[in-house]
Parts: sequence; C-alpha cells; structure tokens
Amino acid sequence: MDDTKRLSGVYCPVITPFNEDLTPDAGLLAIQCRWLLTQGTGLAIFGTNSEANSLSVDEKLRLLEALVAEGIDATRLLPGTGSCALPDSVTLTRAAVKHGCSGVLLLPPFYYKAVNDDGLFAYFAELIERVGDNRLRVYLYHIPPIAQVGLSPELIERLINAYPTTIAGIKDSSGDWSATEKLLERQWDDFRVFVGSETFLLRNMRAQGAGCISATANVNPAAIVSLYKNWQAADAETRQQDLSDLRAVVQQQPMIAALKAVVAHFSGEPGWRRVRPPLLQLEDAQRASLLQALEARDFDMPGLDSAA
Amino acid sequence: MDDTKRLSGVYCPVITPFNEDLTPDAGLLAIQCRWLLTQGTGLAIFGTNSEANSLSVDEKLRLLEALVAEGIDATRLLPGTGSCALPDSVTLTRAAVKHGCSGVLLLPPFYYKAVNDDGLFAYFAELIERVGDNRLRVYLYHIPPIAQVGLSPELIERLINAYPTTIAGIKDSSGDWSATEKLLERQWDDFRVFVGSETFLLRNMRAQGAGCISATANVNPAAIVSLYKNWQAADAETRQQDLSDLRAVVQQQPMIAALKAVVAHFSGEPGWRRVRPPLLQLEDAQRASLLQALEARDFDMPGLDSAA
Repeated sequence: MDDTKRLSGVYCPVITPFNEDLTPDAGLLAIQCRWLLTQGTGLAIFGTNSEANSLSVDEKLRLLEALVAEGIDATRLLPGTGSCALPDSVTLTRAAVKHGCSGVLLLPPFYYKAVNDDGLFAYFAELIERVGDNRLRVYLYHIPPIAQVGLSPELIERLINAYPTTIAGIKDSSGDWSATEKLLERQWDDFRVFVGSETFLLRNMRAQGAGCISATANVNPAAIVSLYKNWQAADAETRQQDLSDLRAVVQQQPMIAALKAVVAHFSGEPGWRRVRPPLLQLEDAQRASLLQALEARDFDMPGLDSAA
Repeated sequence: MDDTKRLSGVYCPVITPFNEDLTPDAGLLAIQCRWLLTQGTGLAIFGTNSEANSLSVDEKLRLLEALVAEGIDATRLLPGTGSCALPDSVTLTRAAVKHGCSGVLLLPPFYYKAVNDDGLFAYFAELIERVGDNRLRVYLYHIPPIAQVGLSPELIERLINAYPTTIAGIKDSSGDWSATEKLLERQWDDFRVFVGSETFLLRNMRAQGAGCISATANVNPAAIVSLYKNWQAADAETRQQDLSDLRAVVQQQPMIAALKAVVAHFSGEPGWRRVRPPLLQLEDAQRASLLQALEARDFDMPGLDSAA
C-alpha cells in the first residue's frame, strides 16, 4: 500500500456505546465498527458524534487499543485527536500513528475564543513537531457551530505550506456550502475536502471533493456510500434527495441521542441509548416519534441485529 | 476551623509558569502562590487565566500535589476542576478534596453548545455523586463569554435544592452586573457570589456579595484585597476607580499574556512570559507599551522580585 495515499470516501463518526456505569463499552463499539466496515464506511471514531470530548484521554487510548486488538483494520480508522490541551492532542495523535491509523481528525483547541491564526498555527505546528513522525496525516476539523473556533483558508494554506506532506485535508462542518466551495476553489495540491453532512455530498463530489464524514452515516451508511460511488449516475439527484430527507427526519431530535436510539432499536441492544451528561437520552415520546417516522420511510439497518 | 465555612474574599486565578519546553514550572508557581498569600488573596489555581484547559489532567494533578508538598496552605486553594469529560472532572475534584482544598471552581462541560439545564444538572449531579465526599464544596463557574455554556438561575437553584451543603457559591464572569444582581436577589442560604472582575467589587460588596476572583489579582492583589476589606470606608469609590483604571490598562493587551509579561518584568523572571499555544506571548511593542502605561501610574509589585 502506498503510505502517502490520502483518504476519500464516506467516514462515519462512530457513536460510542456506554455500559450502565457510563464507562465505554469497547466490545460493542468493535461490533458496530465491523458492521460499518461491511457497509463501506471508514471509521472516524472520537468525533463530535462519538462524544469524544466527554471521554478522558485514557478512555480514548484504551478504546483505540481495543479496536485494533479486536482486529479492526487500522488503515480504516480516522480518529479525532484534537483537544484543548496540547499534551492531550500529542498523546492521542502519537497513539493513532503508532497503531497505523491512516490519519487523524484534528479539532482546534476550543476553550479560548479570542485566539488568532498565529496562535492556532503555533498550536498545530507544535503538535506536528512534537509527534515528529512522517507517517502522520492530519485532516483538519472545522466545526464553528460547536467548537466556535474556526479555521480560516489563510491558516489552512499556511499549514499546508509549512507541512505539505502532513496536512492532508479537512472536514468542513460549517454547514455552509459556499464556505466549502471556497476551500475547493483553492485547489491545494491533493488536499482532501470532506463535507460534514451528506446533504452536501453530491455537490462536493461534483466540485472534486473527497467525500463526507457525517453523523447520519451511523444509521444510513450504505445509501450514503452508494451515492458516493455513483455520484455520476443518472439518478444521483434522487439519491441525494433521499439522503437529505432521511437526515432531516433524524435531525428533528437531538442528533447524538437520536442516532443512539435508532442503533439501539435496530441492533436490539437498548444499552446503545445511553449518553454521557451533559447530553440526554431521548425521552420515550421523542424516540417513538423518530422510530415511527423512520418506519414510514421503510427505513432499515440490514445486518445490524445479527452483527454481534 | 469550621469545616463547613464558605469562602469569601479575593481569590487570584493564578497564572501558570512554563519551562522552556512548555512543561509547567511547579517551583515557580509555588513561589508565586506564596507571594499572593502574603498579599492576602486566596489561590484559584487552574482557572481560565491559569490556562487550565491547556493543561492535561495529569499536569494539574502533579501541580496540585507539588503546591501542597511545597507547604502551600490547602485551605487557601480553590482549584478549577471542571472539564468537558466527566471522568476528568471527577479525578480532579477528588484530588482537590483529598488535599484539603476548601472548594473547587466548576466550569460546566463546554464542548456541546445546545445542552439544556436538564443535561447540565445531570452532569453536576453525576459529578457530585461520584466524588461522594461530604467535604466537597462546589463554586460554580459561570463564564459565558468563553465557555459559551452558561448556568441559569433556575439550574443553580435546582442544584442548591438537591445538594444544599455542597453547592456553596458561584463565580460570575458574565461581565454583566445586572445578571450578578439577579443572583444576589435570590438570597439563597449562605450562597457565595463572587464577581469575576474587580470592576464590580464595590457593587458586589454593597449587595452582600462574597468578593471577587479576578485575573488582575495576579498583578494588583494588595489593592484589590484592600478595597475588599475597606468597602465601607469613605474613600471606597476612589479605590474602586483606581482598581478599574488599572485593570483597563492591563486589558488593552490580551489578558493572560499581559499578566505574564507584567509578572515577568517585576519578578525578574523572563520565563514567566511563556504561554501555551493557542495563546501567544505579547510582542515586544505590546509589552513595552503595557509596561510604560503601568510605569506612568507608578505601578509596582512590592516584594515579588525577592519572593524567590
């Protein structure tokens, strides 16, 4: 395998299952990851939808270790490793490289809000230097609605110029297609632009984007992967509309709790519903309404109930 | 000492010194803490101005351990222990209680932005239950300009009702005096309201507040403590104006880097200037302008240069 190959396709920010005492359930996570691989997605573990920032560094290290020990192909893993504290990001990023992950998804430090591009550049530069491994591939994670701290095109260009081999792409979760377009128009050399929602997948593929990393890939992976593969097909617009409609149904409830409720239902594992505070599980009425709306669309998650 | 006594006075969110490799310098921090104690402030280590969220949990545990080992009076310590991840907050809070700290200052989890009071209540409740120690005293930390996630009066009241012994007060860094006043008007039993800036200190004392926990206490501690002690004196308004004027001078530069530049200058320890990315040190021109403005006011930090 060409170890400089950059990523493309559909990645799933895999939701994290918790035991009754709210510790992460590594075994159930491995089952879910294996099922997602059969559906054709890569595994963006430790993302926003994974409740990654509700996990300690040690919990994430142990989960990553467990997935690899369970035989999950590390080259299909794209873990989120960005933290507010530089040493935490270094620890997690080093572990990802050590385990052979194809890349890491890097949030900017998100506590201080009045930081400028020089400060963010210093943070990413320090991180890359400290990890100090030429196998590292960084996919920047731009999610201003949640992190509040965003990544400007000027900052991205500075990082690409300073670390042309390491800076490999971005997940743009701005939710603003015109901002994504501006990134694509820069045509940085082999820079991979993933959209943060499959709502923009067709537009992204038509503009030479790399794919998407989307919450809803937790429940609707095969259909998203299918549009990714067939974006030039005659029925691409229809497929896109179907994906967007399904996402709109899920989004009527708080996203992470909704994804977990759906996976709990179709896997027959009610424990999947658990979230860590400050998030809350769906209430019964919310869950019923969501499952009913999905049923009305003949939605299914084939193979999930037998994945264990 | 009555171990149920709640805190009042002036607390300093102590800035954190870094070695050349950006590891925390525990020895220099202990020196600074000792000097602050001579000036009459308590020690709100691991606050926003301490770059606490740029430190790993292990770094904070080791610093706390080192300060206690250096003989810093733990009853004068009010460490920040709130993190995005519940297990991190539990670990830090347990350590604070174990070391005999008089309380902890608790940020809400600040990554997810669309959380509601039920989710935040679940977070704080889970934390308090897991620490499970009746010596724990929690001071909530409300700082919406940075954390974005705030604490509503309704949430605070729910927490007080559920944990009347544990929930002891709040640091209100909203920067909005009318919001602070609304908290004071609730007159919760012995609930301690600290303002997050000495700009509001006199108003807070007149409204039966408990004092302040303010960035500028790093450089101007004695004068702030003096107003706290003499808020009923005839010259209180003049003192307040002096404090506010001095703060305005420091605030012309990015706060944390400015505090560090001032302490570096008056202690003769240039290493104090270091910050962790994404923060940046002041540039030479910024530093010169700040020190000149302070000199014009005959500002001094007596005893700091010989504190080591």
